[in-house]
Amino acid sequence: MQVPKASDVLADALRERILSGEFVEGTPLPPERELVVQTRMSRTTVRESLRILEVQGLVRIKAGRAGGAFVQRPGEESMARSVGLLIRGRQIRLAALLETREAIEPFCARLAATHRTDEDLDALGRANADLEASLDEPDLALFLQSNLDWHVAVAAAGHNELLTGMMMALSRAIYTATENEAFVDRAVKATTLRAHTTITNAIRDLDPDAAVRRMTRHVHSYAEALMQVDERTDISVPDED
Amino acid sequence: MQVPKASDVLADALRERILSGEFVEGTPLPPERELVVQTRMSRTTVRESLRILEVQGLVRIKAGRAGGAFVQRPGEESMARSVGLLIRGRQIRLAALLETREAIEPFCARLAATHRTDEDLDALGRANADLEASLDEPDLALFLQSNLDWHVAVAAAGHNELLTGMMMALSRAIYTATENEAFVDRAVKATTLRAHTTITNAIRDLDPDAAVRRMTRHVHSYAEALMQVDERTDISVPDED
Repeated sequence: MQVPKASDVLADALRERILSGEFVEGTPLPPERELVVQTRMSRTTVRESLRILEVQGLVRIKAGRAGGAFVQRPGEESMARSVGLLIRGRQIRLAALLETREAIEPFCARLAATHRTDEDLDALGRANADLEASLDEPDLALFLQSNLDWHVAVAAAGHNELLTGMMMALSRAIYTATENEAFVDRAVKATTLRAHTTITNAIRDLDPDAAVRRMTRHVHSYAEALMQVDERTDISVPDED
Repeated sequence: MQVPKASDVLADALRERILSGEFVEGTPLPPERELVVQTRMSRTTVRESLRILEVQGLVRIKAGRAGGAFVQRPGEESMARSVGLLIRGRQIRLAALLETREAIEPFCARLAATHRTDEDLDALGRANADLEASLDEPDLALFLQSNLDWHVAVAAAGHNELLTGMMMALSRAIYTATENEAFVDRAVKATTLRAHTTITNAIRDLDPDAAVRRMTRHVHSYAEALMQVDERTDISVPDED
């Protein structure tokens, strides 16, 4: 027989009250000693419950005099972390990551070209400027980071939190996997910058069809080039329109 | 200044050893008392670390003489749970859920029509049989459950864990949202069964193009009908090919 743990029971009850909006975002939960009195559970149990909620991204625990467990809404970040755990834990192949990105990202580009705000365009522009600055950097870090920033910015511009959380996890895993590849040379960087620029233009011009078409080609050709990296010495990602 | 908590430090270290494969799936972690000796941390701290890993789906804690913290690989289920938290916590609108499904599910159908096994076909067949049995049930529960089972079975037949985890979370949220709608009458059920049958046929016949085309139409018309539920009294989901 499975006997539920006291800390799970309390965590479940507090979680419901957070998700229902009874405990408001940014406000502290009742202090530990009060929860001990209310629930007649031990201090250790109460503390464990709060830690469970912290791990799930539902509270942020601050120490000190003005401390406490502050309510927060679960966000893309906590979703991205658990998707990241799945990717690492199951040792999901790079091919499956690229396949998932091909499923999702053209749709993100369509949404971005429909819902983007001026702030979204700024974020895309900043990522492209960083990418351009990385062209002549021998170190890959700036290229990978600005590449990732741009892909996440496209998803964010679509204003669909689920797709954004998914793209955050995917992009991170893809760029971790490609960090050590001999694959990224100057030509690949330049092609990537051109693709990002034309897609950004479609998003700016509120042209969903062009955004989808260009993004489809971009993620597909990047994936193809990447999957052939073992077979060829010299890799080039085909140009886009 | 942020001082890391001892239990987080230990949880991080254990997590790395699980994800790297050093601790093998199905085997127990070193017992609590041994971790206490090894790490010189308190028993409470060690226990808290193990609970954190349990919440993240990386160990299963069993009580009793043959008990311990048994290593498990994070799966679609833990991903689906955290996506579910995001959906509820952010109060993501039904429209956004349907939009995400339109992005992902046709791709799942394509993968299913490429990679499905005989077991996958059995699961799809069982879900369709349950759906058929639900046609004349006044209670919605069987219809909703078999509908959900079928959508998850399509994703599972694609053998991409990320898309499966996402579809599990999405389908559950969508069917929770539609549970109280006046929307699901006998005609909607019958149309759904016909659509599921023709898509299942395309998957069985290894015909990815038909699978994509039919799934695109199915999720789109279901979404359209659902979004109009407030505006009309009599709802019918358009038929598919």
